[in-house]
Amino acid sequence: MAENFAFAPWMESALLRVEQALSHWVDAPQLTDLAPDLPRAMRYAVLDGGKRLRPLLVLAAHEACAAQNGAALAGAQAALRAACAVELIHAYSLVHDDMPCMDNDVLRRGKPTVHVEFGQATALLAGDALQALAFELLTPAATEVDPGIQARLCAQLARAAGHGGMAGGQAIDLANVGRSLQRADLQRMHELKTGALLQCSVVMGAHCGAADAQALQGLGAYGAALGLAFQVVDDVLDVTADSATLGKTAGKDAYANKPTYVSSLGLEASQRYAKTLLTQAEKALRDSGLRQTQALQALAHMVVDRAH
Amino acid sequence: MAENFAFAPWMESALLRVEQALSHWVDAPQLTDLAPDLPRAMRYAVLDGGKRLRPLLVLAAHEACAAQNGAALAGAQAALRAACAVELIHAYSLVHDDMPCMDNDVLRRGKPTVHVEFGQATALLAGDALQALAFELLTPAATEVDPGIQARLCAQLARAAGHGGMAGGQAIDLANVGRSLQRADLQRMHELKTGALLQCSVVMGAHCGAADAQALQGLGAYGAALGLAFQVVDDVLDVTADSATLGKTAGKDAYANKPTYVSSLGLEASQRYAKTLLTQAEKALRDSGLRQTQALQALAHMVVDRAH
Repeated sequence: MAENFAFAPWMESALLRVEQALSHWVDAPQLTDLAPDLPRAMRYAVLDGGKRLRPLLVLAAHEACAAQNGAALAGAQAALRAACAVELIHAYSLVHDDMPCMDNDVLRRGKPTVHVEFGQATALLAGDALQALAFELLTPAATEVDPGIQARLCAQLARAAGHGGMAGGQAIDLANVGRSLQRADLQRMHELKTGALLQCSVVMGAHCGAADAQALQGLGAYGAALGLAFQVVDDVLDVTADSATLGKTAGKDAYANKPTYVSSLGLEASQRYAKTLLTQAEKALRDSGLRQTQALQALAHMVVDRAH
Repeated sequence: MAENFAFAPWMESALLRVEQALSHWVDAPQLTDLAPDLPRAMRYAVLDGGKRLRPLLVLAAHEACAAQNGAALAGAQAALRAACAVELIHAYSLVHDDMPCMDNDVLRRGKPTVHVEFGQATALLAGDALQALAFELLTPAATEVDPGIQARLCAQLARAAGHGGMAGGQAIDLANVGRSLQRADLQRMHELKTGALLQCSVVMGAHCGAADAQALQGLGAYGAALGLAFQVVDDVLDVTADSATLGKTAGKDAYANKPTYVSSLGLEASQRYAKTLLTQAEKALRDSGLRQTQALQALAHMVVDRAH
């Protein structure tokens, strides 16, 4: 595999597994009669759109570790569950962020946002239910996923999603609209808001693949660099891309006077910084001691070179 | 203990442990500088108020099971974490329910609701962060709580909180405002909306106390009866009590034309039904094979006889 690795077919196959699993798990038929809008809104928020970057990171990190341990399939079920769980957390955060009391966004992935389509109350509940469903996915019967792995995955995801991760980063963002943040504080905000969940994806995959300490360390550093790069590129695209390409409203961070890398460093320095972070991510992969990291390398390039 | 059990001192001691633990865990000092409102809103939502019924159920169920197994202290740390986790889920649900797009309530436990005090965006984020924190509490280091127990507690709580539990029940409530629900559908709504989390509290305590199959079965049935009784009494009090006693707006379900037991059965039949459910809960405790169930018995009486 190491010599012949081709990213496109790997990604196609991984995406297919993720989409099928998400579609399976986000169904909630038992509620359909009495409250059909909740499962509909949950499906609407999760399916049919999204780059699935976080699930791909979980699967790629799992495969790199499992290959190293000579156990290519061990933990695959756990990894697929972790991949979907982290995507559910991401999806719920978008639903809540788009609400009128937050970013008040009406367009997401080229479609009306969940609260526009289903109303605010259902959007609120759908987000809440998606967060719970993420932890439900991580905790199947003990025969399916080892309970020790389950506990570790829940621990990682809870911390990455909560006050010390994504929600905390959102709060910093919210508290600093219209202010200029120090570079270190801007970085801290992004480490929490976007970076924590991206890094968590890589680390969850590593846990599913029974990573050793060196691999965990390297992959953690890779995830941190990639998470920051993702946000820097996001800020750049907010300025350089148009709404049609982005599938969401372009220029809205600048318009909302939010602190961004571009407003802090300038456009060109931000673009250079993204390249530096890519180099850091690649170095961290070499330091991990893992050999089959081609998918992780390709994902890092994808994050930095993307157009939307 | 069996002969001399006194509920009041048991409850006082249990509440003290819960309040201290909640206060410890809901602190998020690392965010204070950059986004002080998030941890403040989280503390505001959780501390200083609340009957702590769910935590008391966790602790009472744990102690009944641990006493049976001759291991009075085993699992006590897990039980205290579970007690606080379920209260965080309850607290987050109140924050989100009170928001303008849901019940639009301005008074809770005699204080302004979280969104009135901190704004809607912070209320939304605080609720989200409290849900994540619940799963964080359940997943400490493996040296502190056995990972197998951690996984089981996360599994229980995720299902009780999500689309097949509390959030699903809320959605049914929302979808049926202004309609008259069939008795079976009304019961289904309440089993999910309130019952699932109350029953989950009892079952989580049982897992922490290494309950056997008979005890789990009996405590599950006790939790189901108690959960339903809680809601029936809630509906009765919405009609019979005043806002000052309730600490929230009385009569609002009737005003909002929401389906309730009182609107479905009438007041007196609802009061009788609550007594019947109490009898069922007591029978389930006897069926559990557990001997030291006095705290659980007293809690069931407290639920049915409460004035707010």
